[in-house]
Amino acid sequence: MNHVIHLKSRPKGTPQLEDFEFIEEQRPNPKEGEVLLKTKYVSVDPYLRGRMRDQESYIAPFQLNEPIESGIIAEVIASNNDNFNNGDFVNGMLQWKEFQTTTGKGLNKVDPDKASLSAYLGILGLTGLTAYISLDRIGDLKEGETLLVSGASGAVGSTVGQIGKIKGCHVVGIAGTDEKLKLMKEKFGFDKGINYKTTDDMKKAIAEACPNGVDVYFDNVGGEILDAAMDTINKNGRIINCGAISLYNKTEVPTGPRYEGTLVRKTVLMQGFLVRDHAKEFGPATKQLAQWLTEGKLTYEETIVEGFENIPQAFLDLFEGKNKGKMVVKI
Amino acid sequence: MNHVIHLKSRPKGTPQLEDFEFIEEQRPNPKEGEVLLKTKYVSVDPYLRGRMRDQESYIAPFQLNEPIESGIIAEVIASNNDNFNNGDFVNGMLQWKEFQTTTGKGLNKVDPDKASLSAYLGILGLTGLTAYISLDRIGDLKEGETLLVSGASGAVGSTVGQIGKIKGCHVVGIAGTDEKLKLMKEKFGFDKGINYKTTDDMKKAIAEACPNGVDVYFDNVGGEILDAAMDTINKNGRIINCGAISLYNKTEVPTGPRYEGTLVRKTVLMQGFLVRDHAKEFGPATKQLAQWLTEGKLTYEETIVEGFENIPQAFLDLFEGKNKGKMVVKI
Repeated sequence: MNHVIHLKSRPKGTPQLEDFEFIEEQRPNPKEGEVLLKTKYVSVDPYLRGRMRDQESYIAPFQLNEPIESGIIAEVIASNNDNFNNGDFVNGMLQWKEFQTTTGKGLNKVDPDKASLSAYLGILGLTGLTAYISLDRIGDLKEGETLLVSGASGAVGSTVGQIGKIKGCHVVGIAGTDEKLKLMKEKFGFDKGINYKTTDDMKKAIAEACPNGVDVYFDNVGGEILDAAMDTINKNGRIINCGAISLYNKTEVPTGPRYEGTLVRKTVLMQGFLVRDHAKEFGPATKQLAQWLTEGKLTYEETIVEGFENIPQAFLDLFEGKNKGKMVVKI
Repeated sequence: MNHVIHLKSRPKGTPQLEDFEFIEEQRPNPKEGEVLLKTKYVSVDPYLRGRMRDQESYIAPFQLNEPIESGIIAEVIASNNDNFNNGDFVNGMLQWKEFQTTTGKGLNKVDPDKASLSAYLGILGLTGLTAYISLDRIGDLKEGETLLVSGASGAVGSTVGQIGKIKGCHVVGIAGTDEKLKLMKEKFGFDKGINYKTTDDMKKAIAEACPNGVDVYFDNVGGEILDAAMDTINKNGRIINCGAISLYNKTEVPTGPRYEGTLVRKTVLMQGFLVRDHAKEFGPATKQLAQWLTEGKLTYEETIVEGFENIPQAFLDLFEGKNKGKMVVKI
């Protein structure tokens, strides 16, 4: 037998377990040119919430009563494709199934001797690439500048902060528990941390943690924390809009203070970033990330949940901030 | 005697004539190294509203009971400075005075035989430079793209639209009277015009005028028109935040729909622009503008008000949209 997870209903507001459905089906057999894959690690990510919505976006919405897909590390357990052998490990956008067949298109082999398999979903996967390429293309960090990061103990945020330190910046992170702040400072080398859940006045807290103002704000959350960062942004500041998790589950159009006055007055740049648009840069970026990892300049945290049946709950836990670093499910 | 205009009080909301004060003083005499200038044309611009506010900005606020300053064309009527002769015409940031002395620092000579004196405050001055450099640095227009412009019959907007046509774009302008729309289309060659005052549903109107969506939005106004443009922006769209005249006279923090979700989803770039930051590009940009002007590819409109005593009213009229093209006061 094979287990599969379908999107059963489009979430209204915060996704619920009932929005997902477990299906049993026959285990597939690979046809000519195909490989049979056994899922090893499944990446769960906040952006998947967007694909559950039926709206035009950078990537097609999930269909109801069809499998969900995300970044997955799988093992080749049968191959009718000359490019793959039994025992190969591959990384790709795959479906939430225990077993699946594919033509091999879009799969990249990964080496379990160079890094742990789950790292290829995180620091050496799209999360690491998001941090590296967005800072390179939009952030344009200069030594001595101040970098502010929200979602700072998360997979992308913690990598962003560490790259900021490699570049010689003053790095301040925002997160939601004191445990996360401790992790940021002790493991990832952030200079300062702000707990947004226990801080009444975020504008004041950011201003105090960033005495020279904010040159680059890497935003994973949007909403009121973005408002507070905007208040402290420096002339010619850059804001990387990588995510807006605080808005993803809103059912009405979210409103807030208008930014255009500040954008003009301080000639601020705000730019949305999607790592998929930058596939041409993946090669050199991965090489740099792997080198820093080997040199010990970069480290990572991951939260590994076990069991195929726990994938939906692991996804829901992202919105509660229950993960530290990259959230993956081990099958 | 010499007449001078002071800022008497900081406007609350919309500026009033009472916020200005006319002062009489002795006509100054140039000291060693100085020139005596007679004001010929005074530029009045929406951004001056910002300097009337007592807040940190890109340029120091005006001081109460001190002269206001703006772009001015003046004639040298006495010179103790080897770089200037009687009869020279100069362009500079000067005070609202009939006569003034300066060291000559920051003054540029202008040639009345090459273009009308007032053009050096408009198409060949900061307004033309704003249009040209912002499109070059942020807009990155490509042939066949759609360019949307607000404040489109104004000095900057009409130049932006014409450059869009030179670059082979579909150009749509937004303005507040049918007369202005006619001017945009007949004189400046815009493809379509939208009268925001008589249009109920701006989102729909923009979508209809821009069937391929908006690639570049040049924003002079901010507020609800920006919201509508954001609704139609294409993947990888660019928004040039050049002004936010709809917000300048607000006394409370203006609010609106949050943009960060769209910025991420469509990887949109928004960037504030201030022409003063790009002084190094003025030389080549002015040369290009002058060439287009000579070739007849670029034209301009100006509203010339006469009389030193009418400077404050001309400034107030900007917020009523009473100008067509660049507003200048001839002394």
